[in-house]
Amino acid sequence: MGRTLKKRIVVALGGNAILRSNERGTVEEQLRNVRETCGRLASMLTQWYQVVITHGNGPQVGNILIQNEAGKDKVPAMPLDVCGAESQGLIGYMIQRSLRDELFRLGKTRTVASVVTQVIVDDNDQAFHRPTKPVGPFYDKGYADEQMRTKGEHWVEQQGKGWRKVVPSPEPLEIVETEAILSLINSGIIVVASGGGGIPVIRKKDGGLEGVEAVIDKDLAAQRLAGDIDADILLILTDVESVMLRFGQPDQAVLRDVSAVEVRRYQEEGHFPDGSMGPKVEAALRFVESGGDAGIITSLSSAHEALKGKIGTRIME
Amino acid sequence: MGRTLKKRIVVALGGNAILRSNERGTVEEQLRNVRETCGRLASMLTQWYQVVITHGNGPQVGNILIQNEAGKDKVPAMPLDVCGAESQGLIGYMIQRSLRDELFRLGKTRTVASVVTQVIVDDNDQAFHRPTKPVGPFYDKGYADEQMRTKGEHWVEQQGKGWRKVVPSPEPLEIVETEAILSLINSGIIVVASGGGGIPVIRKKDGGLEGVEAVIDKDLAAQRLAGDIDADILLILTDVESVMLRFGQPDQAVLRDVSAVEVRRYQEEGHFPDGSMGPKVEAALRFVESGGDAGIITSLSSAHEALKGKIGTRIME
Repeated sequence: MGRTLKKRIVVALGGNAILRSNERGTVEEQLRNVRETCGRLASMLTQWYQVVITHGNGPQVGNILIQNEAGKDKVPAMPLDVCGAESQGLIGYMIQRSLRDELFRLGKTRTVASVVTQVIVDDNDQAFHRPTKPVGPFYDKGYADEQMRTKGEHWVEQQGKGWRKVVPSPEPLEIVETEAILSLINSGIIVVASGGGGIPVIRKKDGGLEGVEAVIDKDLAAQRLAGDIDADILLILTDVESVMLRFGQPDQAVLRDVSAVEVRRYQEEGHFPDGSMGPKVEAALRFVESGGDAGIITSLSSAHEALKGKIGTRIME
Repeated sequence: MGRTLKKRIVVALGGNAILRSNERGTVEEQLRNVRETCGRLASMLTQWYQVVITHGNGPQVGNILIQNEAGKDKVPAMPLDVCGAESQGLIGYMIQRSLRDELFRLGKTRTVASVVTQVIVDDNDQAFHRPTKPVGPFYDKGYADEQMRTKGEHWVEQQGKGWRKVVPSPEPLEIVETEAILSLINSGIIVVASGGGGIPVIRKKDGGLEGVEAVIDKDLAAQRLAGDIDADILLILTDVESVMLRFGQPDQAVLRDVSAVEVRRYQEEGHFPDGSMGPKVEAALRFVESGGDAGIITSLSSAHEALKGKIGTRIME
């Protein structure tokens, strides 16, 4: 299928590609941001032929959870895996429509299609014993106590903000729809997949799949996807142009072209905080360590130049 | 791609394939129904190689609308096109997981993938001047009046049940993601597409797409899809085993193998009511009249036998 002539790239969009932190999440806000994101992607992607786009879903699934809670006396609330599937439809629609339009404006007729994506996790993953990933809005202590007592949920207090539910964040083991994604990119179709880290499912004893209440880190899922489809490049987009060493200190330094071995060492020295840069660096490292050409971490506005190696952090073997 | 050896079929699931009329729509109810539906499809589909499944979304999008309304003071409500996209994610996830599992139980490893699907409609479609399709729950007159006054919406009263919003139901002109669906079925992947009749979009002057507040009839969209992918068979599943003439009268008669010309005549004589059998018969007729081998209307439990021509209503040229 011309594989040797074509570069295969997985682009992981950051949260602010769809919703900014100061926005409530109206459809107008989301469509405006997605349109801007897709405009940048469109001009960049003309050079690349096989493209899979993945994205976060935190604010969107948070809003869906609030709507489920608000309407629960009238209609049955859906569990987290189903809400995640809903958010894949919502965000996938916005991206596929906007990216098609932005490519069309550049004279390129390309189909963009979103695939509802399940990701297999291990039900023995230690994450299930130690929920860490916050989902949904903040509530008061009384509500949190009730949920913990009646549903066995885990909630944590965040100083000054209230209580928030936490769910396990297990390792992504396998993208269930890999074959579908490969078929599409081999046909020149741009795919949106594994939104929000994918819908987490476990494999039951009978071989069937079952949804679980968990959230897979979207960058680690992007790496799993990139590995499963044998991508050449994993491009992780975030708020900053480059990964920094000693971030925020007087002697902070920018990481540019750097080997995986070197970045592993920085990681072990504790340069990359858990909640923010940590999973992105880990995803890029895993990708390169398992045979990928380059794991790139940069901002959306620097992505085009970063692909040419002129800017951003590029991890290679 | 071996097209000549393989039959291509579009299966349009009826509403009760996912939710029964006496159910509220808990995830357990929906998954149980979908599992049962997929069990029947799995044993039937082993004989067919290229399969696209489409489905309604009325109850699900109704519930999402209720949740949006209930939560609107906390998070921005989404418009109907976005809610439709959410329902495609929700239902697509349930079908693709369940059908994969049911095929797996039969020893068949097949990927099932849902594609978020947009369907182009004409913004000059006369349906936009005459909204007819009810969406969401019943409300009282006061609420309906307010929506009509403040938002310019159309609402109709249904005797004894209250007021319900109605939206246009335009003709489906083109499935935007046809190329993606073709790529997938040519790779042996079972596709779930065009859920709820697809997300209705219009083509703007600049060639871009824009979502509109409308609902496309799911059977007419299934026919459009079947035509666009050059399917051999359109299988429309509903509550009854066959289409009837003079339904409910003493001399009612079952329609079995019948020509499109004959069915058009019955249609003109008024045998098929607008709200129920009408669109299904129209979809099957259009399919055969535009070159499809057979448009079959039957129940899920009779589908297997109907494909063999033993039961159900089969419209052919």
